[in-house]
Amino acid sequence: MLLEPSSVVVDRIIALALEEDLASGDLTTEACIDEGARAVAHAVARQPVVVCGGSVFARVFARVEASLEIDRVVADGELVGPGTKLWTVRGKARGILMGERVALNFVQRMTGVATQARRYVEALPAGSKTRITDIRKTTPGLRALERYAVRAGGAHNHRDDLGSAVLIKDNHIAACGGVRAAIVRARAAAPHTAKIECEVDTLEQLEIALSAGADIVLLDNMSTQVVAEAVKRTAGRALLEASGGITLARVKELAEAGVDVISVGALTHSVPAADIGLDFE
Amino acid sequence: MLLEPSSVVVDRIIALALEEDLASGDLTTEACIDEGARAVAHAVARQPVVVCGGSVFARVFARVEASLEIDRVVADGELVGPGTKLWTVRGKARGILMGERVALNFVQRMTGVATQARRYVEALPAGSKTRITDIRKTTPGLRALERYAVRAGGAHNHRDDLGSAVLIKDNHIAACGGVRAAIVRARAAAPHTAKIECEVDTLEQLEIALSAGADIVLLDNMSTQVVAEAVKRTAGRALLEASGGITLARVKELAEAGVDVISVGALTHSVPAADIGLDFE
Amino acid sequence: MLLEPSSVVVDRIIALALEEDLASGDLTTEACIDEGARAVAHAVARQPVVVCGGSVFARVFARVEASLEIDRVVADGELVGPGTKLWTVRGKARGILMGERVALNFVQRMTGVATQARRYVEALPAGSKTRITDIRKTTPGLRALERYAVRAGGAHNHRDDLGSAVLIKDNHIAACGGVRAAIVRARAAAPHTAKIECEVDTLEQLEIALSAGADIVLLDNMSTQVVAEAVKRTAGRALLEASGGITLARVKELAEAGVDVISVGALTHSVPAADIGLDFE
Amino acid sequence: MLLEPSSVVVDRIIALALEEDLASGDLTTEACIDEGARAVAHAVARQPVVVCGGSVFARVFARVEASLEIDRVVADGELVGPGTKLWTVRGKARGILMGERVALNFVQRMTGVATQARRYVEALPAGSKTRITDIRKTTPGLRALERYAVRAGGAHNHRDDLGSAVLIKDNHIAACGGVRAAIVRARAAAPHTAKIECEVDTLEQLEIALSAGADIVLLDNMSTQVVAEAVKRTAGRALLEASGGITLARVKELAEAGVDVISVGALTHSVPAADIGLDFE
Amino acid sequence: MLLEPSSVVVDRIIALALEEDLASGDLTTEACIDEGARAVAHAVARQPVVVCGGSVFARVFARVEASLEIDRVVADGELVGPGTKLWTVRGKARGILMGERVALNFVQRMTGVATQARRYVEALPAGSKTRITDIRKTTPGLRALERYAVRAGGAHNHRDDLGSAVLIKDNHIAACGGVRAAIVRARAAAPHTAKIECEVDTLEQLEIALSAGADIVLLDNMSTQVVAEAVKRTAGRALLEASGGITLARVKELAEAGVDVISVGALTHSVPAADIGLDFE
Amino acid sequence: MLLEPSSVVVDRIIALALEEDLASGDLTTEACIDEGARAVAHAVARQPVVVCGGSVFARVFARVEASLEIDRVVADGELVGPGTKLWTVRGKARGILMGERVALNFVQRMTGVATQARRYVEALPAGSKTRITDIRKTTPGLRALERYAVRAGGAHNHRDDLGSAVLIKDNHIAACGGVRAAIVRARAAAPHTAKIECEVDTLEQLEIALSAGADIVLLDNMSTQVVAEAVKRTAGRALLEASGGITLARVKELAEAGVDVISVGALTHSVPAADIGLDFE
Repeated sequence: MLLEPSSVVVDRIIALALEEDLASGDLTTEACIDEGARAVAHAVARQPVVVCGGSVFARVFARVEASLEIDRVVADGELVGPGTKLWTVRGKARGILMGERVALNFVQRMTGVATQARRYVEALPAGSKTRITDIRKTTPGLRALERYAVRAGGAHNHRDDLGSAVLIKDNHIAACGGVRAAIVRARAAAPHTAKIECEVDTLEQLEIALSAGADIVLLDNMSTQVVAEAVKRTAGRALLEASGGITLARVKELAEAGVDVISVGALTHSVPAADIGLDFE
Repeated sequence: MLLEPSSVVVDRIIALALEEDLASGDLTTEACIDEGARAVAHAVARQPVVVCGGSVFARVFARVEASLEIDRVVADGELVGPGTKLWTVRGKARGILMGERVALNFVQRMTGVATQARRYVEALPAGSKTRITDIRKTTPGLRALERYAVRAGGAHNHRDDLGSAVLIKDNHIAACGGVRAAIVRARAAAPHTAKIECEVDTLEQLEIALSAGADIVLLDNMSTQVVAEAVKRTAGRALLEASGGITLARVKELAEAGVDVISVGALTHSVPAADIGLDFE
Repeated sequence: MLLEPSSVVVDRIIALALEEDLASGDLTTEACIDEGARAVAHAVARQPVVVCGGSVFARVFARVEASLEIDRVVADGELVGPGTKLWTVRGKARGILMGERVALNFVQRMTGVATQARRYVEALPAGSKTRITDIRKTTPGLRALERYAVRAGGAHNHRDDLGSAVLIKDNHIAACGGVRAAIVRARAAAPHTAKIECEVDTLEQLEIALSAGADIVLLDNMSTQVVAEAVKRTAGRALLEASGGITLARVKELAEAGVDVISVGALTHSVPAADIGLDFE
Repeated sequence: MLLEPSSVVVDRIIALALEEDLASGDLTTEACIDEGARAVAHAVARQPVVVCGGSVFARVFARVEASLEIDRVVADGELVGPGTKLWTVRGKARGILMGERVALNFVQRMTGVATQARRYVEALPAGSKTRITDIRKTTPGLRALERYAVRAGGAHNHRDDLGSAVLIKDNHIAACGGVRAAIVRARAAAPHTAKIECEVDTLEQLEIALSAGADIVLLDNMSTQVVAEAVKRTAGRALLEASGGITLARVKELAEAGVDVISVGALTHSVPAADIGLDFE
Repeated sequence: MLLEPSSVVVDRIIALALEEDLASGDLTTEACIDEGARAVAHAVARQPVVVCGGSVFARVFARVEASLEIDRVVADGELVGPGTKLWTVRGKARGILMGERVALNFVQRMTGVATQARRYVEALPAGSKTRITDIRKTTPGLRALERYAVRAGGAHNHRDDLGSAVLIKDNHIAACGGVRAAIVRARAAAPHTAKIECEVDTLEQLEIALSAGADIVLLDNMSTQVVAEAVKRTAGRALLEASGGITLARVKELAEAGVDVISVGALTHSVPAADIGLDFE
Repeated sequence: MLLEPSSVVVDRIIALALEEDLASGDLTTEACIDEGARAVAHAVARQPVVVCGGSVFARVFARVEASLEIDRVVADGELVGPGTKLWTVRGKARGILMGERVALNFVQRMTGVATQARRYVEALPAGSKTRITDIRKTTPGLRALERYAVRAGGAHNHRDDLGSAVLIKDNHIAACGGVRAAIVRARAAAPHTAKIECEVDTLEQLEIALSAGADIVLLDNMSTQVVAEAVKRTAGRALLEASGGITLARVKELAEAGVDVISVGALTHSVPAADIGLDFE
């Protein structure tokens, strides 16, 4: 069901990554691998992972050597154990060796993000309607890929960029002279298709945001107890999002407090790369 | 003394990152911040870090709004404590708010890498001549920035790309029919300015690599004991590099075993972003 | 108050436009204008217009010849009469002549859009809360500029792109088996920051969309009478948007029928260029 | 017989247009359309048009989803009535829905230009040798496409850019001190392959331009009577081009006055988009 | 009087050239040159040359290090002797050393072309009206720079590209069934601003081309004697261009035979780089 | 055995070259060649050459017209006599004619470089182990292609760019205060994978460089006699490279003097284009 990032976006960062590694050729491959040599190699998970990045894996190799054939054995979003073959590439050995590192650099990060997202999703209580989402703390150049990985891991995306929704933060509030004024200005200026989200630090601010008609209220760095109180006071008038210093440990209690969304920078900003290797037959 | 990555390289990834966040404008800033409003904001470390990314910080904001002034308070490579002001940006509030997230996304990663590199360097015994280096497991699009961050952290770089040195791995050896043949072919084909490095799994392979004239031998996934034996047998005939599953805990013993280089993928592939915030005056 | 399109976006289309006109130099200027000649020229409205494009005008000339000085006499969004000087460029005559056509090609279109938008806005009844908005029928490559021009004309923007809000149309409804199923799927998949808009052809569909929780309902090609009935039935449960074949003549009656938004492809898809000339002193 | 614009040029603006619409994905399609769903859709004229843009239509969809099949039912340049199927796209429904708007935005403009050009061509007297041409008032980024559309409509192109022919205008004349001096300088400096065209305001200037050897004289904003006199005096010594405020109504009389070329900014600068829809089977 | 190539064009090839040399940094400069070190260096001709490339020299260094100051001591197009200082760069030593090779690679080629062009121009008889021109045999990526250098050397340009004039060659003639048909088709299809040039192999073809109204006739690989006869027969009805295997030695006799243009691929396709060094104070 | 330059690099300069020639279309082809016309054309050597550029030839035509078929008759690196068919292109005549000039501009230069390289290689004494190499005096934008051509000609490459090896020159030595200090600083700062080369002017400097552990010493502009003495003194402690004003005539004596490498700027900086034509069947 997932929609992969558009090739229009993906091809630009792939080109950049390949230029980084291949602009000066590959001295070792030129010396050691005959032009006609062929090989088959499998990307294999070395740990349990939520798979992500099959199309990027394929596009990287296709850009290096158009004749390579890629077989996506496992679909993005599946949870697999160590030793699982994820994707197979077969054809000219030179092309496989030249694209190997760049392809792995992409999919290890994407799979890392998907796996991380799954961890947070699984920390939710069974049947919970609370969402785990990313925020805009993505790696420069990789936003579309990381947001896709978040979805592949079963979590959700927050707004994509500064132009797709309003998110009023402390500096905006200060500049406008208060929560209400900021929301009123945003409502007047933003497209009718854009939701208005407002960050609040206190329950007093929450009340103002609700009465001013915020669609979403971001509860910034609040204790679970205060969050629970916020949920009670809000009574469905707006979506409530908990954010700021969310750890895996707090996910369950926040969800149980009834918050709609838990947004987690750590889904993308500090993700351990998944251990995926390329094994030659 | 460090040389910052060339703006020719840096500006491309900055442009990509800004397009990701700003291509559709900034709804909140348009609504809430007056065109003439001015502000001063400080990037502040929230934890102990080795600072890295001042010029990228400056270039991001300059690209968003050319009139912003940047003050680099702390130089790249310095170790600072939490609360330290690293860089200051002053000028049009709209520009500062619009560039904030992208600028932070860059410097949090760069400073994270520099800080990580410092950890490994500090794990070396006092006075050790052993080097800590990165490998090519860098984030797609960010290689030049991450390699710079590694140097800012006091570690060293491995080869930059597939064209700047020969590194013969298992698949190359298999394709050539052995270590000796691979090294001979590489010596014949590669520029005389390129060193020949060869990966070995055993001491027998090490002997062959040395006798074939390898400039560097990569000891792949060897125990410290075997590494020590390799150092003894090599007796300075080549540089020795330990690689594969290096943890912070093993750095000291490997250095004491006398290896010249310890190469660490974890310098760049799974780095926690440094906690740096932007505080408005 | 308006926020101009980011230079990151604008500079790409400016570069493309200048390559179209200047890649082979300017034969006439090389032959007829001395290198040291200087000039002053004024962009002048030849008809009543809502001004738009000052920063693009400036950036085009700056890209052609960095030393040119630009004076923005009239701010974007102002309504001026024929003969009004809008912007002045002074400096090397060669640069002014070389950039003239490209600069005018941009601002005539942008000012045309702003002027067109103003016409629709003025067709609203006095004090009306109904919004006039564009849709995605923009000129390829100029979307950010045209959306800005729409705002400069006093109208509003619809969603920027396919990723910033959900808009369920007939084909989506057919694929999902109905309005309700489509809205449910969209709610489940889309970010919580994205509004769900659904197009409907009948009042029956409207009822379903409302009960399924659509944030916005697009009333497609409905008579004013049916629109009025839709407004009555909706009773504020969702924003209502009238779209499809909107003419200037129908704006007033649709607004009086109480619709929240009137979206108009003609704001951007067929706009007469504003008559702006460049007069040399 | 027409030569379509080179893909080298076309692909850049297509990429830009797709980035505008698809950089953040397509929320609605991801939610509502299954990955495996297939569809067939026909681009259909909703009014009489001169068809233009088949290859751009195909390239847009190919860039979104390489596996889509395009059938160009009607060739560019044909005049068709409302209801005519122009092009068919079949394959993955997701790809068709994602590319629809961008593809239509291109072809509606191109077909609009071709249709507009045909109107002017048909206003010529039967058997007339007079040409209708565009000028450089094209949409930034779309020049090659619009010039092609002009030819598809049966009209001709003027010079492509500032480097492909000399066109001396009032400011050049003033800078050189007169028509003769300007032509002499241009003849000396320009490639021998470039024609020299000179704009004149009076019959006196025309005489000077002719005696100085202009290849083409542009009669700027002259009455039909004066144009006829200019034709008589020129007696074939140069091509004569009427320009400035040309309306459809004046085309016939200007052609009958014997002018060789009528150049019309309105072929490209204010063209109503053709009404073309995409109907799904 | 010369018009330098537009920065829009120049900056793209400069960026490409700098990426080739600097994408991985400058190991030597980082190690050996202190960050604060300053220097002054002069580009000096080591042989007699016609100077060309001052603005490219300046733009390369500006792109490497914006703070460098450039002084253009000698203007493009001047003939200078060995030892002449052409341009001076002063500022950060690191920037100068990093940009040196790329800057020289550009100006050595441009100055080489200008010097070569001057040689051909000087081979003309005194007072000759015959032009020396380049053709499209330019270095990929450097066309605008090389054409400019040709002009700086005192020669002229041929058509810039396939879209700026018609040049009918043997394959076009064969496809059309003859010279006359080809010219007629070209006249009908090409813009009225484009000259029609036709290549001929024989005097018979020349007569046909003239009677068909060719603006320029290219005399392909003809002996000087036949060229003289062609001049006589043409009697000013068209420009005559001699081309094909032109050596410096034949320039004088061809000019004396009365041909209007001598086009010389060797102006750009095999030019010895001028010997220009960068001397540090 | 040769590894062709990566398409990631090659496609950028091909795009630039095609934009130079085809951005405005091809007036002659549009007029004279029917859309359906087909042709077969052979690239034929007109002189003895070492062939180079087959894949670039193919990629240029593929970019112009994807349906063209290319047959590489002769492999890169082969020496062939005049009249030899190198590559064949067949398909739409329009595409062949439109790509012809750009394709030839590439391969004439590449084959010229390969042929030039072969000349230097053949000047070596039989069985010599001395290498001929290029240096960084390559054409801007064409470095990867020219370095490949050097290899195709049987010579070798020097370092690719400023980041792939250290080369200490006079200015670096002066800045560091001497040869030894420069080498020590370079050793400390550069990656362990990078060789340290140092330029010397005298035998005294050579001794210092050797004792400081330089991997390669560049003997700058030394007489053959001094070079021979340098070889003797070095006794294998480092590679020795002769450079500066190398002519074909001196290659033999320098090789006999025992130098390891002779680096020759003339391999790329002033290469006569090979005479290759495109003959249509």
